[in-house]
Amino acid sequence: MSDADALLAPAPTADGGDVGVVRPQDFVCKEPFKFDCGAEIPEFTLRYETYGELNADRTNAIYICHALSGDHHCAGRHAADDRKPGWWDNIIGPGKPFDTNKYFVICANCLGGCRGSTGPISPNPRTGKRYNLDFPALTIRDMVRAHARLVDHLGVQTLAAVVGGSMGGMMAIQWAIDFPEKVRGVIALATTARQSAQAIAFNAVGRSAIMQDPAWNQGDYPPDAGPNVGLAVARMMAHITYLSNKSLDSKFGRAKRMTTVAGVPLSTLAGEPMMTIGGSASATPNHFGVEFEVESYLQHQGQSFVNRFDANTYLYFTKALDRFDLHGPDGRLEDAFKAMSARALVVGFTSDWLFPKEQNQEIAQAMLRAGRRATYAEVTSDLGHDSFLLNSPDLYALLRAFLAAEKS
Amino acid sequence: MSDADALLAPAPTADGGDVGVVRPQDFVCKEPFKFDCGAEIPEFTLRYETYGELNADRTNAIYICHALSGDHHCAGRHAADDRKPGWWDNIIGPGKPFDTNKYFVICANCLGGCRGSTGPISPNPRTGKRYNLDFPALTIRDMVRAHARLVDHLGVQTLAAVVGGSMGGMMAIQWAIDFPEKVRGVIALATTARQSAQAIAFNAVGRSAIMQDPAWNQGDYPPDAGPNVGLAVARMMAHITYLSNKSLDSKFGRAKRMTTVAGVPLSTLAGEPMMTIGGSASATPNHFGVEFEVESYLQHQGQSFVNRFDANTYLYFTKALDRFDLHGPDGRLEDAFKAMSARALVVGFTSDWLFPKEQNQEIAQAMLRAGRRATYAEVTSDLGHDSFLLNSPDLYALLRAFLAAEKS
Repeated sequence: MSDADALLAPAPTADGGDVGVVRPQDFVCKEPFKFDCGAEIPEFTLRYETYGELNADRTNAIYICHALSGDHHCAGRHAADDRKPGWWDNIIGPGKPFDTNKYFVICANCLGGCRGSTGPISPNPRTGKRYNLDFPALTIRDMVRAHARLVDHLGVQTLAAVVGGSMGGMMAIQWAIDFPEKVRGVIALATTARQSAQAIAFNAVGRSAIMQDPAWNQGDYPPDAGPNVGLAVARMMAHITYLSNKSLDSKFGRAKRMTTVAGVPLSTLAGEPMMTIGGSASATPNHFGVEFEVESYLQHQGQSFVNRFDANTYLYFTKALDRFDLHGPDGRLEDAFKAMSARALVVGFTSDWLFPKEQNQEIAQAMLRAGRRATYAEVTSDLGHDSFLLNSPDLYALLRAFLAAEKS
Repeated sequence: MSDADALLAPAPTADGGDVGVVRPQDFVCKEPFKFDCGAEIPEFTLRYETYGELNADRTNAIYICHALSGDHHCAGRHAADDRKPGWWDNIIGPGKPFDTNKYFVICANCLGGCRGSTGPISPNPRTGKRYNLDFPALTIRDMVRAHARLVDHLGVQTLAAVVGGSMGGMMAIQWAIDFPEKVRGVIALATTARQSAQAIAFNAVGRSAIMQDPAWNQGDYPPDAGPNVGLAVARMMAHITYLSNKSLDSKFGRAKRMTTVAGVPLSTLAGEPMMTIGGSASATPNHFGVEFEVESYLQHQGQSFVNRFDANTYLYFTKALDRFDLHGPDGRLEDAFKAMSARALVVGFTSDWLFPKEQNQEIAQAMLRAGRRATYAEVTSDLGHDSFLLNSPDLYALLRAFLAAEKS
C-alpha cells in the first residue's frame, strides 16, 4: 500500500523500456452516481492515465486498481526530470510484464480519492463547499462501478485483465464479479476476500488517531490545516504492517540515527545525553527524540504521506476495506464467484502478515469450487505486504505467463 | 503486557487456593540512586507486595518482574470484594505453581512506574514539583538495581527464582546477569534479548502519538489533564501486538457492535445509515464510529489504560525496552551470560509475534553456549504475546517442574 520506493529505492524493474512522459486526464461523468448506501452524487470526475494504444477491436486493455495510498500515476513520468516514475513503473512499459507494445493500460484514482478524482476534498455541487463527511459512505463495489464508467467512456469492449494488489486486489476481484461480461482476466495480489479482525483493528486505531486530532474537526477542516498529526500517526502504524519483521531487521536493525549529542558519543551513555543530578538539564532535547534509524524512517513516511494525502479519504478508504467481505450470509465464499467468467490468478507473498498468503489461497480455492478457472501462486519474499510493489522476477514471470496463456 | 482479562475474562487459574486480601507496602530507600545515564536521584520509593512467608534461612523468595503495563499487584485482592485479583493470580497462591505455602513471592512496581513507585509523576525533591521529563533516562538495568535494593531491604539472601514475561523477562535475565550471587533461577517468558526493529517501530509510533498530543506539553502536564488521546491511541495499537491474528478472529471476527441505527437494520445498508442525495443528512453520527466488535474492544482498552497509567511512564518504559540489547559490540549474545550462575528456563509461545519464539530460543541457546544451565520450552498457544498471562496448564507444568528441579 506504500510507495515502491519505501523500502528499496530505486526498485529495479522488469526488463523493458519506459513509457516516457505521460499526462493525466480527467473523465468527467455528468450522470448521477448512486452509492451502495443509497446516496447519490450528481456527477463525478476520475483522474486517470493510459499507457500504450487501444487496439482496433478494443480488447487489449489492462485495468490497474491502486492500493490505499496509491493513485492513477502508476507508470512513466509527468516531466522528463521527475525524480521518480509512477508507483508500478517496474511492471508497466514496453517489453515489461504489462507490455505497452501490446496492451492499453489504464489506471484511475479511485472514487473517494484525493488525487484528482471526486472525493471528500471535492466541492459538493449542492453547496459549493468541500464534501468532507457529506461524501457518501463508500464501498469497494462503488469504486469499481465508477471505474466501469471510465472503461465505457474509453470505448473498451472487454478487459484482458483487471489487476491490483491489496485494496486494488479487492477491486480487481469485485470487477470480475460485478462485470463478468467485461472482464476476461483478473490478477489479485496480496489481498483478501474479507478484512480480518486484526486488519480492522489496525485501521480502527488509524482512524481513531485522525478523528481524535483536534484539527480533524468532525471532518470539516480547511485544505491547508488538516489533522496532520493524526494522519501521520495512522500512516506510521500502517506502514509497519506493510513490511515484515525480517525486512525491518535487515534494513534497519537497531542502527542508531544519531551518534553524538553536542559532541558526546551516545554510545558511552547507553544512547542517552548526559544529565545532571536531579535531571534538570535534560529538558531540551528530551529523552524521546528520534534515536533509531527505523524511527527516522517512519517519521519520514508519516510526514511525506501528510503532504500528499487527505485524512478524510483515508477514513473513507479504510472503512471500505473494513466492510469488504465477499462471503455470503452462510459464510460460503464460493457463491461470490458464481457469476464470474474471468480467468483468475491470485498471488500470495510468504512474508505478508497483513493479508497472509492463506487468505489469498482461500480466494483461488473458492473460485475453483465455484467452477472458475483460477490459479493460486505463492511468491517467496521477505519484504512483507509491499512485496507486490517491489522488484520480483518471480512475480513478473507469473504476470507474463498469465497474460500469454489467454492467447494460447 | 496487558491485563490477563483482556481477552478471556475471567481466566481460569492453576489448581490451588487464593492468597486472600493483601496490602501493598512502600520501601523508601533514602540512599541516592545512580542511573546508567549518569544522573542521580537522592532517594526513591518502591511499592511492593509479598505473598507467603520468608523461610528461616531466607532462601525461598521468588521475585516477580512485571511487564510494561503491569504493577506490583500480581496476586490476591486489596479488598475482599475487589472485582478482580492481581494480574498473575492464576499462577501465585497456595498450591499454585508459585506456591505461597513454600515460597515467599515479591513483586514491586518498577522504578519509573506510576503505580506507587518513584517515577515521572513523583515529586522531584529538588523542586517539589513532579519530575515529568526531569526524571532520568531509564534502562532495564536501572530497574533491576532498584529491585535489588528492595530484596536487600527484605533480608532475602538468595532468590530461588526471578520471573517475568515480556519487559519482565528482560528484567529477570538482567537480574541473573548483574546479581549472579543473588539469583539461583531465572524464568523468562515471551521476551527477547534485544528489541527488534519492528518492536522499536511500534513503540516509536506510540510515543509519537503521545508526544504529538498537545496535552503532552513536553511532558509537563497536570495530573488530571494528560495526553489521554495520544496515550489511548498508543495503547490501542500496542494491544493489537499483544494478541494474535487468530485470537482476534476467533474472539471477534467481523462481528458488528451495532445492528441497527434509529431502528434501521444496518445489514440492509452495507452497515451504513441511510443518507440523502448529496449526503447532507449524514453528519451525525458520522460514518466512522465504532462499528465492529473489535473496534469497541480496542476503544475500551485504550480508555481503561488512560485511567490507570501515566503517559510519561509509558515513554520511559518503552524507551527502556527499545534500548535493551544484551548482545556485545561484536554481535555475540553468549558473552552476556558469562557471569550468570542461575539455572534458566526460557519459554516462547507459538503465536507470539511481538517477541517471537525464535527470539526466546536464541536466549536459551546463547546461555548454553556460555556454559550455563538453560532450557528452552515452547508453549503452543493461539493467544499471542499475552499468552504468558493467560490460563495455560502447559506453562503451569513448566513452572512447577523448574522450581521442583532445584531440590532434586
